[in-house]
Amino acid sequence: MLQTPRLDVTVAGAEANVAVALAHFGHDARVASVLPDNVLGRAALGELRRHGVDVRGVAWGDGRMGLYFLSQGAVRRPSEILYDRADSAFALAPDRAKVELGDADWFHVSGVTPALNRGAADAAIAAARAARARRVPVSFDGNYRSKLWETWRDEAPGILRQLFEQADIIFGDERDIGLVLGQRFEQTSAEERRARAAAAAFQAFPTLTRIASTTRVAHSVEAQDYGAVMFTRSTSHQLAAVPLSGIVDRVGTGDTFAAGVIHGLLTGEEDEAALKFGLAAACLKHSLPGDFFTLSADDVRAAMEDEGLDVKR
Amino acid sequence: MLQTPRLDVTVAGAEANVAVALAHFGHDARVASVLPDNVLGRAALGELRRHGVDVRGVAWGDGRMGLYFLSQGAVRRPSEILYDRADSAFALAPDRAKVELGDADWFHVSGVTPALNRGAADAAIAAARAARARRVPVSFDGNYRSKLWETWRDEAPGILRQLFEQADIIFGDERDIGLVLGQRFEQTSAEERRARAAAAAFQAFPTLTRIASTTRVAHSVEAQDYGAVMFTRSTSHQLAAVPLSGIVDRVGTGDTFAAGVIHGLLTGEEDEAALKFGLAAACLKHSLPGDFFTLSADDVRAAMEDEGLDVKR
Amino acid sequence: MLQTPRLDVTVAGAEANVAVALAHFGHDARVASVLPDNVLGRAALGELRRHGVDVRGVAWGDGRMGLYFLSQGAVRRPSEILYDRADSAFALAPDRAKVELGDADWFHVSGVTPALNRGAADAAIAAARAARARRVPVSFDGNYRSKLWETWRDEAPGILRQLFEQADIIFGDERDIGLVLGQRFEQTSAEERRARAAAAAFQAFPTLTRIASTTRVAHSVEAQDYGAVMFTRSTSHQLAAVPLSGIVDRVGTGDTFAAGVIHGLLTGEEDEAALKFGLAAACLKHSLPGDFFTLSADDVRAAMEDEGLDVKR
Amino acid sequence: MLQTPRLDVTVAGAEANVAVALAHFGHDARVASVLPDNVLGRAALGELRRHGVDVRGVAWGDGRMGLYFLSQGAVRRPSEILYDRADSAFALAPDRAKVELGDADWFHVSGVTPALNRGAADAAIAAARAARARRVPVSFDGNYRSKLWETWRDEAPGILRQLFEQADIIFGDERDIGLVLGQRFEQTSAEERRARAAAAAFQAFPTLTRIASTTRVAHSVEAQDYGAVMFTRSTSHQLAAVPLSGIVDRVGTGDTFAAGVIHGLLTGEEDEAALKFGLAAACLKHSLPGDFFTLSADDVRAAMEDEGLDVKR
Amino acid sequence: MLQTPRLDVTVAGAEANVAVALAHFGHDARVASVLPDNVLGRAALGELRRHGVDVRGVAWGDGRMGLYFLSQGAVRRPSEILYDRADSAFALAPDRAKVELGDADWFHVSGVTPALNRGAADAAIAAARAARARRVPVSFDGNYRSKLWETWRDEAPGILRQLFEQADIIFGDERDIGLVLGQRFEQTSAEERRARAAAAAFQAFPTLTRIASTTRVAHSVEAQDYGAVMFTRSTSHQLAAVPLSGIVDRVGTGDTFAAGVIHGLLTGEEDEAALKFGLAAACLKHSLPGDFFTLSADDVRAAMEDEGLDVKR
Amino acid sequence: MLQTPRLDVTVAGAEANVAVALAHFGHDARVASVLPDNVLGRAALGELRRHGVDVRGVAWGDGRMGLYFLSQGAVRRPSEILYDRADSAFALAPDRAKVELGDADWFHVSGVTPALNRGAADAAIAAARAARARRVPVSFDGNYRSKLWETWRDEAPGILRQLFEQADIIFGDERDIGLVLGQRFEQTSAEERRARAAAAAFQAFPTLTRIASTTRVAHSVEAQDYGAVMFTRSTSHQLAAVPLSGIVDRVGTGDTFAAGVIHGLLTGEEDEAALKFGLAAACLKHSLPGDFFTLSADDVRAAMEDEGLDVKR
Repeated sequence: MLQTPRLDVTVAGAEANVAVALAHFGHDARVASVLPDNVLGRAALGELRRHGVDVRGVAWGDGRMGLYFLSQGAVRRPSEILYDRADSAFALAPDRAKVELGDADWFHVSGVTPALNRGAADAAIAAARAARARRVPVSFDGNYRSKLWETWRDEAPGILRQLFEQADIIFGDERDIGLVLGQRFEQTSAEERRARAAAAAFQAFPTLTRIASTTRVAHSVEAQDYGAVMFTRSTSHQLAAVPLSGIVDRVGTGDTFAAGVIHGLLTGEEDEAALKFGLAAACLKHSLPGDFFTLSADDVRAAMEDEGLDVKR
Repeated sequence: MLQTPRLDVTVAGAEANVAVALAHFGHDARVASVLPDNVLGRAALGELRRHGVDVRGVAWGDGRMGLYFLSQGAVRRPSEILYDRADSAFALAPDRAKVELGDADWFHVSGVTPALNRGAADAAIAAARAARARRVPVSFDGNYRSKLWETWRDEAPGILRQLFEQADIIFGDERDIGLVLGQRFEQTSAEERRARAAAAAFQAFPTLTRIASTTRVAHSVEAQDYGAVMFTRSTSHQLAAVPLSGIVDRVGTGDTFAAGVIHGLLTGEEDEAALKFGLAAACLKHSLPGDFFTLSADDVRAAMEDEGLDVKR
Repeated sequence: MLQTPRLDVTVAGAEANVAVALAHFGHDARVASVLPDNVLGRAALGELRRHGVDVRGVAWGDGRMGLYFLSQGAVRRPSEILYDRADSAFALAPDRAKVELGDADWFHVSGVTPALNRGAADAAIAAARAARARRVPVSFDGNYRSKLWETWRDEAPGILRQLFEQADIIFGDERDIGLVLGQRFEQTSAEERRARAAAAAFQAFPTLTRIASTTRVAHSVEAQDYGAVMFTRSTSHQLAAVPLSGIVDRVGTGDTFAAGVIHGLLTGEEDEAALKFGLAAACLKHSLPGDFFTLSADDVRAAMEDEGLDVKR
Repeated sequence: MLQTPRLDVTVAGAEANVAVALAHFGHDARVASVLPDNVLGRAALGELRRHGVDVRGVAWGDGRMGLYFLSQGAVRRPSEILYDRADSAFALAPDRAKVELGDADWFHVSGVTPALNRGAADAAIAAARAARARRVPVSFDGNYRSKLWETWRDEAPGILRQLFEQADIIFGDERDIGLVLGQRFEQTSAEERRARAAAAAFQAFPTLTRIASTTRVAHSVEAQDYGAVMFTRSTSHQLAAVPLSGIVDRVGTGDTFAAGVIHGLLTGEEDEAALKFGLAAACLKHSLPGDFFTLSADDVRAAMEDEGLDVKR
Repeated sequence: MLQTPRLDVTVAGAEANVAVALAHFGHDARVASVLPDNVLGRAALGELRRHGVDVRGVAWGDGRMGLYFLSQGAVRRPSEILYDRADSAFALAPDRAKVELGDADWFHVSGVTPALNRGAADAAIAAARAARARRVPVSFDGNYRSKLWETWRDEAPGILRQLFEQADIIFGDERDIGLVLGQRFEQTSAEERRARAAAAAFQAFPTLTRIASTTRVAHSVEAQDYGAVMFTRSTSHQLAAVPLSGIVDRVGTGDTFAAGVIHGLLTGEEDEAALKFGLAAACLKHSLPGDFFTLSADDVRAAMEDEGLDVKR
Repeated sequence: MLQTPRLDVTVAGAEANVAVALAHFGHDARVASVLPDNVLGRAALGELRRHGVDVRGVAWGDGRMGLYFLSQGAVRRPSEILYDRADSAFALAPDRAKVELGDADWFHVSGVTPALNRGAADAAIAAARAARARRVPVSFDGNYRSKLWETWRDEAPGILRQLFEQADIIFGDERDIGLVLGQRFEQTSAEERRARAAAAAFQAFPTLTRIASTTRVAHSVEAQDYGAVMFTRSTSHQLAAVPLSGIVDRVGTGDTFAAGVIHGLLTGEEDEAALKFGLAAACLKHSLPGDFFTLSADDVRAAMEDEGLDVKR
């Protein structure tokens, strides 16, 4: 920003990212939101449609377009996001988002949504409850980002807990779980901390069946090792970290992971296979600019079969 | 916007535009404002500095960066501006803007500032009063834009009147004057409407010495005739419209006109000469992208001497 | 091309252009076509979706993506299009395009489609016949371009005649009609030529109710006068030409005109009102780059009410 | 420049422009020059080759790459060129340029070359003399630009006179001729001034057979009327000015005109036909960015036949 | 492609790549081909000329411009090429390519050429035979890409064999050789497989004197180890792999390797020195975007002498 | 350059780089120079102002803008700089640069300045002497680049020695010191060579208190290990090299290091802390394009505290 008079514009949003990936995986994905009926809101809607997402759940509303500004990192300077979401059309009237579950076979919500304000939190919880009431599987991605809760941090645990209570699957790790349960997991190894946190979550939330998260060790902004783990009540699946170098964009990888796991489960795969698909998709996302994952399930599977890295022709 | 994934970023603001032009004309120009201490606020500040504006009157404050989005028009489709200024750092704490008049020899404020909210209106009025109290000449650019007053239209006349009361020179026409005086000027010819409005304003505001405005007849977004007029208590100066074609950007031309007239008056020129300089600068502005006028007083004078339009080499 | 190593990519196609405009006007617009399942075909599909077009009528097929290359003109050098459509997926299997009329209330086809090859001509004629059989109004845009028929010019009249026979409304002028009827209209004035050709067409094609076309006088690539005319069996409507200057892109204006007229008729407007809407939309299209018209019906109506050309804010 | 951190790079030079145009017209065109063997010199050479110019007359030499910086004008602000040619490889050793006339059938030199310094002037004169000695027709384009002669203005007439003396055809008008002859042509009409100057030149320079120049009336940087005139000893040909609007780039038009006239003469056309070809080419050049004319003789002839300005497809 | 509305255009082709590199190495390099006389064909020709390639062997012909679309890979997503070469001008009339051997001292052809169709295969074989008949050394780059032979895979061995029979030097490895000989080389180590394949090829093709190939181990799309090996009838030269990171573009590296080896042999170097030059050039190619190698032989030698990687100034 | 018709423009200069970094660290930084009063000089001045540098020490002068052209390296191809500084406004009249020390608390000069010509050397020495006379601490960055002294290499030692004599702190290593002292330091290890050179410098220059330099081991243009060392008369501080990968731009890192160390010393930090700040800033510079360091002291400290490399949000 300081150096260039141009901004690259991408459309993004945690749930939108998941929906776009699922649409590219071949599912009928629908988002529910509220956008302003101006040039920015219409452009966002168009981008969602472009990627095959059903936007009938999006209502027009008063207010601004929620924005964020990304300063791309490099070498040892991390990327940085400046949120500018206050008073967005969705923030002003979150209950106008048209959550119509119809014959849905999955419901997903991210922790960035309830973090917006009380109304958004209520709307997210209500939607998750409605889904559970209709026996639609619910996934919740903790996505805890302290900046987002800055002004009302004390309420985060209570709100997030209500979403954990509806969830069949949580995307998150010991930080998300610790926050909700008011516990600290201070075991020496990251593996152990995750396992303990998962055990505590399964105990606290009876409807929860799976907890999945990715693991990331960063050597540089462009070179990182990236793995994944899934816990169920009976076992756990730990995938070895994949070394990634020349990373193009790390944003949106968590959402792609969630979409990949959901895709696996929706298509009847075993847990470990679903986890592998999620990790493979999220690894691929590191090679794509912007928030959206734009490759197909076939592309992910080709990458899983490791056909080599030379030019395909 | 709907068609491109890139935004060109320019820094702008009515008073900032005037300050930038005055700095390029060789004056010590200072702006007073409040900006957020983030990547956007710092970029804006850097741009002002780049053009030689003294930014010591800018305070850092909480809140967002005020934004606007411009869809460039063409042919018969006018350009369109989407304002996104609510809750800007300036809007939240307008009184923190550091208006230090010191040994200032001019004070300028635009009508887009009081339109922001009550606090901004109060700060603008207080600053104008302080200037008048110190015998610093005050100019006020009406800049009436109905979208900006949308939510509190009834208060516009009262607020603007207080700024008219402090002004030595008003940049505006019968719409601005009519709004403040609660009058309609419905004479057939535009010339007459302006003259009547000016007469009414001189009667209502005893400190007012000059009223200047530009005249614009648009044949197309790229082809327009552009003139100017100045009224004093004793006479008026009407400049013939200049035909402009191949217009690059019409935004910021009014601010450039104001800066040009102020420059003329500050450098001791006669009214008509100052008006001519203002019009010539504003004509040139139509050839520059973005809000800022970036040419020197010599460049303006060269254009006034009509050295021809062929390549200078 | 000779000077730049970059190509701007836009997605286009005569019927796609009409569908995009109709979608932006608020209609459910569906296209039927065949695209290759590769990166180009998927990108094209995504663009159509982005603009709100229903793409369920598009089948994946073997073959290439049809391309064309546009060299943008300027001053007195006209734009030039290099077609590269041979062996496109649609050309290889035009009958696979999924024309499902369902509860359609309009069917539109362009003359560039049958020009592709015999199979495409057959598919276009079959679809138009099916529409007529179901009492769906049929519009046909002659769009005669001699380059496209280059290798089988003799068959053009016979094929186009079959499409004229199904049409309720023809977008075209004396060149299109003359070609089909094997007649020359050599009256001195363009107005008269059009009127005579319209009369001949109404006589030859009993189901035809309207013939509409635009009129264009080009002073320069960027400055042109643009009007429209519609003939019915009982009367005619001639709209005065609008002077357009600073034209951004002239491509796709005919398709926008057709979409505008169709929109008017579909929303129950009188013929002249529909014609005015079509002309206003097509005038606006000259201000937008690319083939697609991306403004709303409200935008068109605002332009018709001539709210002036100054910046909207 | 003040607003953008990017420079578009084009390769140019008065004689190079003529050579490129002649190459695109189908001639074997060769340039003689000296370039530095660095990344800039090699890029320039590559661009000349790209356009089909024979670069065997270019020697590598010490020194810098001659540069110039163009600020594109608009509306009523003329374009401006900042020359940065001092100490270029050519300026340091102009006699190293490999002027090998071989079986050349034309020799062309521009007034910007002798303006560089004494050595360049000597080299230009020597080459022109050699051409005349071999009975190769010589054309000289006055191209008088006062900035270029700034530091040694008094010597300009003497140097230019020596080039006039070798010329069969002069591209220039009363300013060029007046400078050389030390005369002022102050007739009221431009036509008359040109005619008187031509007459004086024919009297002063016995080998001169033709004098050609373009006429330009600028309404705006983007809208100008552009004509041409040629004088011979027995007659004159005056072509009506063509109105040009939406001009993309006016730079290089004079060189294109010269190339067009030379092409006409080389291909055996009558004077007026050659002049028409030159004017048509130069009109077309206004639609192309950069200094080089990149269209073919067929393209020029198509424009002369006025096939209309609509999209060619 | 899915994310950007711009395509970067580069000109490429296996033999063209080799010719461009050889031209930059200082050789007179000529290509023979057929291009369409349209904006694309002329742009391609200009690019070849720009890099100093002699294009007198290129004929204009009917048909399209052969295209391909490259999706740049990253991280663990390989680049992908979509070929769109069917019905290209060259494919329609490959025998029109003007292969005039004159006083040529080398002839090179790539396996992508005969893969196009029967006529192209025949033309390639005929040209290679003519070269051999004139005692011009022949090199053949196997370049086996299964996508290219998709529709007529069974004929590949027979066709390629005829090119192997003419070759003095083959650029290829056990896959190319195995395909032609109908053998599988299944030794455990890559080194051994290559050695066995080379031995078999020397036995089968009596005129063959050298077989060279590169070795590539990819850790990531941007980090790869790159080495080379050359077999002669009497010995072999194996160069240690060079670790490359931050790879810009891997496309065209094989062609650069071939050009580098040919350059070495043409300038009288020993086999190992030629191989080293080829590898060094191909390593450098990884730092250049596009297909063309654009550095000089001096640049390659500087890289071989390992002058360090810090900024040269 | 050979491949693209665009140049990215950045403003740079060794002392300017240091001043910009110091301004971003919160200091009042002033540069003294001479620039031409043209579009290039004004743009450069604007860029300096944008970054908060006080430009009152810059005089307008005759002559050109000094330029350099950077070809960005990659993989194993180093970046390359082509200097084009001869006859710059500063080179023509270096004594016009307004070095007004006023109440300065630091003076910095780089070895690229005296390398320009005799006058520049004299001006640099005079300024350094004036600073010492006023007890302003003096730092000198050796910055030895052999290309810059090409034409008068023999005088380098004598000139540089005079700058060493004024310096409190030298940024440089055994190459700089060896050049000035006419000594060679040929110890096996780099550490030892630096230590010996430092010892020799402390002996030769009694006012010298610190010698600091960075250490760089390049595995690739994008992957390098980067450390730093500082010698005082009593001790030395050696910082372990930081592995950097995905390097964006290595240019300007030395200047950022100098600015960081100066910042540390000016703010009263211990030597080792100042060195650590300098190294951390210089490491960060590798992630920023262009010559200028544009982050704040807080940003540097955050990087020193190693808050991790994941997206900050």
